[in-house]
Amino acid sequence: MRLTRYFLPVSKDVPADAAIISHQLMLRTGMVRQNGAGIYTWLPLGFRVLQKIEQIVREEMDRAGAIELLMPTIQQAELWQESGRYDDYGKEMLRITDRHEREMLFGPTNEELITDVFRSYVKSYKALPLNLYHTQWKFRDEIRPRFGVMRGREFLMKDAYSFDLTEEAARASYNKMFCAYLNAFDRMGLTAIPMQADTGPIGGDLSHEFIILADTGESAVFCDKAMLDLPAPGLDLDFDADLSDEVAKRTDFYAATEEKHDEAEFGKIPAERQVSARGIEVGHIFFFGTKYSKPMNATVQTADGANVPVQMGSYGIGVSRLVGGIIEACHDENGIVWPQSVAPFEVGLISMRPKDEAVATVADEAYDALQAAGLDVLYDDTDERPGSKFNRMDLIGLPWQIVIGPRGIENGVVELKNRKSGEKSELPLTEAIEKVKAG
Amino acid sequence: MRLTRYFLPVSKDVPADAAIISHQLMLRTGMVRQNGAGIYTWLPLGFRVLQKIEQIVREEMDRAGAIELLMPTIQQAELWQESGRYDDYGKEMLRITDRHEREMLFGPTNEELITDVFRSYVKSYKALPLNLYHTQWKFRDEIRPRFGVMRGREFLMKDAYSFDLTEEAARASYNKMFCAYLNAFDRMGLTAIPMQADTGPIGGDLSHEFIILADTGESAVFCDKAMLDLPAPGLDLDFDADLSDEVAKRTDFYAATEEKHDEAEFGKIPAERQVSARGIEVGHIFFFGTKYSKPMNATVQTADGANVPVQMGSYGIGVSRLVGGIIEACHDENGIVWPQSVAPFEVGLISMRPKDEAVATVADEAYDALQAAGLDVLYDDTDERPGSKFNRMDLIGLPWQIVIGPRGIENGVVELKNRKSGEKSELPLTEAIEKVKAG
Repeated sequence: MRLTRYFLPVSKDVPADAAIISHQLMLRTGMVRQNGAGIYTWLPLGFRVLQKIEQIVREEMDRAGAIELLMPTIQQAELWQESGRYDDYGKEMLRITDRHEREMLFGPTNEELITDVFRSYVKSYKALPLNLYHTQWKFRDEIRPRFGVMRGREFLMKDAYSFDLTEEAARASYNKMFCAYLNAFDRMGLTAIPMQADTGPIGGDLSHEFIILADTGESAVFCDKAMLDLPAPGLDLDFDADLSDEVAKRTDFYAATEEKHDEAEFGKIPAERQVSARGIEVGHIFFFGTKYSKPMNATVQTADGANVPVQMGSYGIGVSRLVGGIIEACHDENGIVWPQSVAPFEVGLISMRPKDEAVATVADEAYDALQAAGLDVLYDDTDERPGSKFNRMDLIGLPWQIVIGPRGIENGVVELKNRKSGEKSELPLTEAIEKVKAG
Repeated sequence: MRLTRYFLPVSKDVPADAAIISHQLMLRTGMVRQNGAGIYTWLPLGFRVLQKIEQIVREEMDRAGAIELLMPTIQQAELWQESGRYDDYGKEMLRITDRHEREMLFGPTNEELITDVFRSYVKSYKALPLNLYHTQWKFRDEIRPRFGVMRGREFLMKDAYSFDLTEEAARASYNKMFCAYLNAFDRMGLTAIPMQADTGPIGGDLSHEFIILADTGESAVFCDKAMLDLPAPGLDLDFDADLSDEVAKRTDFYAATEEKHDEAEFGKIPAERQVSARGIEVGHIFFFGTKYSKPMNATVQTADGANVPVQMGSYGIGVSRLVGGIIEACHDENGIVWPQSVAPFEVGLISMRPKDEAVATVADEAYDALQAAGLDVLYDDTDERPGSKFNRMDLIGLPWQIVIGPRGIENGVVELKNRKSGEKSELPLTEAIEKVKAG
């Protein structure tokens, strides 16, 4: 993308009303614009990150055997009356009345709707196991939206729902999601720690939150330091195999959010391994058995001909929240430092003198070569002064910068800068491309 | 995708409450499930088509230089009060009050919101031309939702908004969208005819609807038969060039919807070229100048230092409606006949005897080979009887079927069937793959 044709409204001012660094940086880099309390437009730069995160989550859900569909944002009140949550949910649920005076709502979560889809079609144990997921905008009417997209009202979430015949099978489905989540967060450059957590309004008695550590995290978390060094299960994991060891490897260590924290258990960890920190929740998985299937009469026939309520779990990832969460974990004093997998562009190409024909020609050729190599490139072809170009590239945090200037052209090299390490090197363009592609 | 692991709830029954063929077929093939009046869940098969259409539209918008962002579904009432449309829009607008008693609405369209984004950042003519688009769910509280996704209440639309300094430049932006639309519909296998149309609640005095002909179309349309044979501008079109000839080539012919129909003008066409038919609107483009920028004070500074309201247009494509529209145009007595570009899977692989080890092995190998060739494959590995498998494949309308049976294995061939022509041939798998890839 040529910057002269792009829409990148970067600002030098630190917004006064943004309390945390990710919110400040998202406003300064023109990633989002607030349209109302907790409601945002994703400007082009921010939208690209949102899409990349959504796609990583999609790929890891698919790899784990989940099947994608898409439920609507607006739901009928009747389903929530069936499950008993219509009154329970309180003021966080955005309630709507249509022109025919029907009661509706903007879905804050989808357990009821997916249970209704399931019971409409699935009648036999033979169709199980089944895991259906979607990535859709949701609305929770938070009383005090804050921290930008981290606690907005309209937010993008991936939510998956598993259906199994037995509790044992349901736990196997839970384990698949547990591992898929670790892989997904790992691909985003995050260390997400699964922690015992409260189940809140979703319900059930088995639940893990996936937490990334950050000083600005909204809750206190406690874990064994050993958990920070455990590698993700890996993309070659066989999701048809028994994954209980893979899960136990992690749950054997102590890790809990404030609500589930047990000081005595925590005290048993060697002192040097006791991590007491702040954390940001980026995912949450639940096993809740028949909490919805029973009242909503979602039953399947067993091999014996009996009808039993289906065993269910649900699995959420906060896609829009992750954009803020990743910035909290990945920034420095000059701006954002994107992990390459979720960066809006993988490389920023800077032409030092776009009005100098020789420089413009080489820069144009470099732009074509980078794109031909399958890389997402933001090409700064503006005639602003170099200092302002470098500052902007640092601020928006693309992992690599390639600078084309008259001196380099003479020597047949470009300057390649790694945003994270700050390391600069002069090398031929083809070698720079290889380095960027290697990540 | 292996069918034994997929969620494809196909039904033999013709739904009684579905009035048109696309609605019937979408319900029978398990593409959508209705969750309320005009509100649908997109089941896995339907969701894949929706995604493919969205992606084609995205690619053609990008090619024409438009920039993608994403606006929220919920908007503040204040913006619509500024433009004057809050009261005008009537009961089709879904109005919402939040917990703090603030007036909000579920966006039926986004002229106000994008104008607000624009005026917040763009102050100078130097940033123009600019075309911003998104694909987002919208809601119109239709009094009688019907025809399935063709006239739903919650629907997916791509809407683009152009900003220019002068009316002349705005017309150039309009022309780009005009051509991009023809290319996008062409890629979907549709002949979409641009017709003079009413501007309705969007406003302005220049507008074209893009219409596909179908007996079940909701409006009467009239055009010169010559328009049906005009090729699309083509993907190699230079969008930086003057496109007025490209547009004039089409607008020189008579084509109008009922509201704009002029019987006298129509009568001047030679009788054998007079087409009077029913049509489905799949896109609509508008030039409305300063209708929103003036009341909302979206101005830019000219080279002379004057401040003038920006010239705007808007450009919609009904992404979810297109799914129904394509089925109306592409079906036969056995079911859907997908154009390959939007088919949920490009090829259906049928194993005739999944319990016969030799057949299963060859079918598994074929599945791997098709996927390795980059094709989307639905692999029917169920042990149902062949007749039921063939009927299902015909019903869901994948463009190609490959059948693996014991006789073919002996001869080293598979059976390849083209869904549209019905043509069958026996050939080695590698040749079948080449044929499918060639489309």
